[in-house]
Amino acid sequence: MVDLPDKAERFIDWYLAAVEAAELTDKRYEVKGMNIWTPYGMQSRRALDALLVREVERIGSRAIEFPTLIPQPQFEKEKEHVKGFDDQVYWVTKGGASALDIPLVLRPTSETAMYPVFALWVRSHRDLPLNVYQIVSVFRYETKTTRPFLRVREIHFFEEHTCQADEARATARVEEDLAAFERMAAALALPFAASRRPDWDKFPGAHYSIALDIPVGQGRTLQIGTVHHYRENFSRPYGIQYEDPAGTLRYVHQTTFGLSERLLGAVVAVHGDRRGVVFPSILAPVQVVLVPIAAPGGGAAPVEAARGLADRLRDRGLRVHVDDSDERPGAKYYRWESRGVPLRLEIGPREASAGTVTAVNRLGERTVLGPGELDRAVADALSAFDRTLTARAESAFRSAFSVATKLEELSGSTTVRVVPWCGQEACGHRIEAAIEGGVLGTPERPLPVDPGAPGPCIACGERSGARWVLAGRPL
Amino acid sequence: MVDLPDKAERFIDWYLAAVEAAELTDKRYEVKGMNIWTPYGMQSRRALDALLVREVERIGSRAIEFPTLIPQPQFEKEKEHVKGFDDQVYWVTKGGASALDIPLVLRPTSETAMYPVFALWVRSHRDLPLNVYQIVSVFRYETKTTRPFLRVREIHFFEEHTCQADEARATARVEEDLAAFERMAAALALPFAASRRPDWDKFPGAHYSIALDIPVGQGRTLQIGTVHHYRENFSRPYGIQYEDPAGTLRYVHQTTFGLSERLLGAVVAVHGDRRGVVFPSILAPVQVVLVPIAAPGGGAAPVEAARGLADRLRDRGLRVHVDDSDERPGAKYYRWESRGVPLRLEIGPREASAGTVTAVNRLGERTVLGPGELDRAVADALSAFDRTLTARAESAFRSAFSVATKLEELSGSTTVRVVPWCGQEACGHRIEAAIEGGVLGTPERPLPVDPGAPGPCIACGERSGARWVLAGRPL
Repeated sequence: MVDLPDKAERFIDWYLAAVEAAELTDKRYEVKGMNIWTPYGMQSRRALDALLVREVERIGSRAIEFPTLIPQPQFEKEKEHVKGFDDQVYWVTKGGASALDIPLVLRPTSETAMYPVFALWVRSHRDLPLNVYQIVSVFRYETKTTRPFLRVREIHFFEEHTCQADEARATARVEEDLAAFERMAAALALPFAASRRPDWDKFPGAHYSIALDIPVGQGRTLQIGTVHHYRENFSRPYGIQYEDPAGTLRYVHQTTFGLSERLLGAVVAVHGDRRGVVFPSILAPVQVVLVPIAAPGGGAAPVEAARGLADRLRDRGLRVHVDDSDERPGAKYYRWESRGVPLRLEIGPREASAGTVTAVNRLGERTVLGPGELDRAVADALSAFDRTLTARAESAFRSAFSVATKLEELSGSTTVRVVPWCGQEACGHRIEAAIEGGVLGTPERPLPVDPGAPGPCIACGERSGARWVLAGRPL
Repeated sequence: MVDLPDKAERFIDWYLAAVEAAELTDKRYEVKGMNIWTPYGMQSRRALDALLVREVERIGSRAIEFPTLIPQPQFEKEKEHVKGFDDQVYWVTKGGASALDIPLVLRPTSETAMYPVFALWVRSHRDLPLNVYQIVSVFRYETKTTRPFLRVREIHFFEEHTCQADEARATARVEEDLAAFERMAAALALPFAASRRPDWDKFPGAHYSIALDIPVGQGRTLQIGTVHHYRENFSRPYGIQYEDPAGTLRYVHQTTFGLSERLLGAVVAVHGDRRGVVFPSILAPVQVVLVPIAAPGGGAAPVEAARGLADRLRDRGLRVHVDDSDERPGAKYYRWESRGVPLRLEIGPREASAGTVTAVNRLGERTVLGPGELDRAVADALSAFDRTLTARAESAFRSAFSVATKLEELSGSTTVRVVPWCGQEACGHRIEAAIEGGVLGTPERPLPVDPGAPGPCIACGERSGARWVLAGRPL
């Protein structure tokens, strides 16, 4: 029962310790960067997937699933795309004892798996829009240091792919996806920045890429998702055409929307504290833990009260655990705190006879609930916890950005910087060198700081065309 | 709008046509035997997974997920097991441009992925039983002809793995899994035979294997799952030991329970008819389709009535579709029949004004529902459909078995045969040659035919040790 490493000072050490203490994953699998989803981690992943499914189906996407393996010729059709992934794909070259005629790639993402088939699915304007998604494993042969959820070689991945009739409709779809992500992020209490990446950092094959970044302290950011506009960059090589109402053949405009298990890493990184993980209730494998506390030589009243209340909470659809093991209460508190349970209910003999519980939420707020309508009071306390968590995250988000107008201000920055940039790539690289990180791009949503009108480019001093961009240090 | 091929005469042609007409899968992916889950197929798969999860969690299994790739040395630790899979695994040999130091196998099943880690998870008797499952893709380099859902190279797979304290507890777990499968099969209206496979046909590394077979007509059977008892066959090579309460180190006894997308193939094969797929309601992507029928030049009353009723049915948790497209009603009926929708509601102007609907279920039974409490009447009609489907399947199941006591009766058999066998492998192979199929094994559940006491072995005439076994022609 020792505190974790200091989160601000030793972020990565803290992160690894928090994930470990919560038993969200087991890293002892024999292949580096391929981790095991433990029962507890798997429950949070399932809750996360359910949230993604709910929000993406709300905007009309339908679940599909394409094969894991992609034949080499199909994979290599879009030149820029394959160039972007060439170094980081796994190759299947043998089946049984014999070499395969055509090597197969373990998908790093599914554009090249899906698009030849989209060419068969899309024939007429009546087939549009085509909005589909899958939640699958993708594979990247990472050479950088791997970290649970943040950088792994087998990635639990959400990918939406859409075909639209024209560029404007594809742009509108990008907006719909961003709005869906806003709802997901709100449910997870995760404020984020959406930035149009500079050209040198967009997705291989994209017309433009909007990345979703979450500040995780000290000027660091975590890219947890992207929405891409492909224009006709894939539909031309893969031949995805439709007949418009006038009988003309046109190429579709495509978009994608990608998220991954990094979102779980972001939840750990943003909400966690010195005692470990803090789950927003939507993601918590256990939302309420009940700890009955028997008096020395006392009766079974606390256990019975806990079990009765647990049943009523389950009837309300809550995920509940009664910890009636014979450990000391302190050890139990510690374990469930490090596992991020939003709400703990302590029930001693006094509470049991009064029909009350002492509720302590994961942010340390303590209240007495009841008597009467306890299950409703617990549900309310859980909602109140989520609101507090959101307020805390929003406050941290506001403090995570600050304006800089001189290059020398960027070095060692402990915030994400909002800087004026002329748009030239050379200046962009000077900004990146100064902050020892990256130009995240042009904000697509209002920022928590209002920088006013942009001054001259922070790098070259040129006034014309200057716009505000975000610069930070991607994890 | 033509009928499908004759199911009894040309079963495989019928099967392929039925799957195609229902648009459950798209076979046009560039890798043979790796198919695409379409939106409609994906919905039925999701419903199937939800059923498996519900029943297996009821018996205390928890979801986990292990990596897709298994390092060669780990894969090759249990000799018999690797021998069984050697010819049918895909090998990953390259990452980026360079050869991997250690080749990786795409899991054909996960024993060898999981068990080295189970050795870390299981330390004490308090860690037992360990009951976990995953639902993932597994890969087999099939050389036989591939068929959607029945024989594919990327398989949607359910696998439960358990560690028990001793052999008796492992045997008891096998029984719990069989009981869980009975509940799943009942929900799917799929009667099945559970047979202890002969030794030459058990799973590589198993102590014994109980296979779940479904008769699909003409003496053919479809193996849709297995439950295996491994004794210590894996725990010894992988070192899975625990300290018992007396402080002695013991090897665990292990079991597995496997099911796959074949279960969906079995639903098609068993319930389908000349018009296509028939879904039991639990699996149907659309459970109720409402077809409003406007009178020529008539008003919107049927459409409005259909939409209002659809909303009420959705509130009851039903999966509902209103087909208000401008096709002819006949074309709509045909499409939804071939897609297996259990219940169609026809609403014309007369029905709309009377507050009734004409309900036609997928087995052709027609009734008028209402007026009043229409949503409840629809739900009842759906339950009645499931009962009829079950009764029909049970009747077919009973007719699918017959006793044979002479080898010459086996040739060209159109039923699964119940035959007396002495237990010698040579006699088993003579039975298999005679029926041009396989000895399925000793029934683990009462058969629909009661053969009385077994007579002499059908192959050698030996009386002693003779028992009834099933023999059929596995698809």
